[in-house]
Amino acid sequence: MPPPCPLCASEVLPIVWQNRMCRVVWVQDPEYPGYLRVIWQRHVEEMTDLSWAEANHLWRILWGVERALRAEAQPDKVNLAAFGNVVPHLHWHVIPRYRDDPHFPEPYWGRRVRNRPSVRAVATCETMRAALTAELGRGEDVALV
Amino acid sequence: MPPPCPLCASEVLPIVWQNRMCRVVWVQDPEYPGYLRVIWQRHVEEMTDLSWAEANHLWRILWGVERALRAEAQPDKVNLAAFGNVVPHLHWHVIPRYRDDPHFPEPYWGRRVRNRPSVRAVATCETMRAALTAELGRGEDVALV
Repeated sequence: MPPPCPLCASEVLPIVWQNRMCRVVWVQDPEYPGYLRVIWQRHVEEMTDLSWAEANHLWRILWGVERALRAEAQPDKVNLAAFGNVVPHLHWHVIPRYRDDPHFPEPYWGRRVRNRPSVRAVATCETMRAALTAELGRGEDVALV
Repeated sequence: MPPPCPLCASEVLPIVWQNRMCRVVWVQDPEYPGYLRVIWQRHVEEMTDLSWAEANHLWRILWGVERALRAEAQPDKVNLAAFGNVVPHLHWHVIPRYRDDPHFPEPYWGRRVRNRPSVRAVATCETMRAALTAELGRGEDVALV
């Protein structure tokens, strides 16, 4: 029997925003404050395993997360990625990047080029929660499109 | 004066599909046949620099590229990423991944774990061109939504 999917199990990271379809969690990497993960609640592996309506819903949420992140964290660049090679449950990484962060201009998964966190990375879980609520509303209650 | 943007300049990679908004190019990595890049034609840096209508158009194209890739290349996983740290012109990486490819389960940008290409990676530029045309039509002529 395969091990249970960790993204189907109870969430261990702080939830910044969620509705019935998606949750947005705070990744808790001290070098990358503002790093968020957008997780589809239902277990699917690929974006194209969703219905087209579901995919559009996810896109609207990713859009809102990027907007909230830019407004709150003022990064030099936003990085977006969906891999799922290790945990094949659809989830997106949304990462604010700064020219002085530990990997810039490499991807987060690339070679480390310096050993101190960015001096400009100041987002907190609470400020991102407020920014996401401003952008996406309070979950179920709010029309997303 | 900053150097000219290489993604605004003439394309050097084979174009697999394009319309007025986006082009899809063949990345020509011999270890990753089927690795495609989706490039927004106009110079913008972030997804949320697009209008909402443009972003939806891009989403529809990414969706089509993933579908064509799954149909043609039958990967174990699709990886999607938009960074732009080095070249800040909006572009997406769409990469078919196999359990026996050189980096699996690491991201393409992560640590190499073996030194031979996947035996299952068999997509060609021509087969992907046909698959993308079947999925997205022939560019301008075809309604995307």
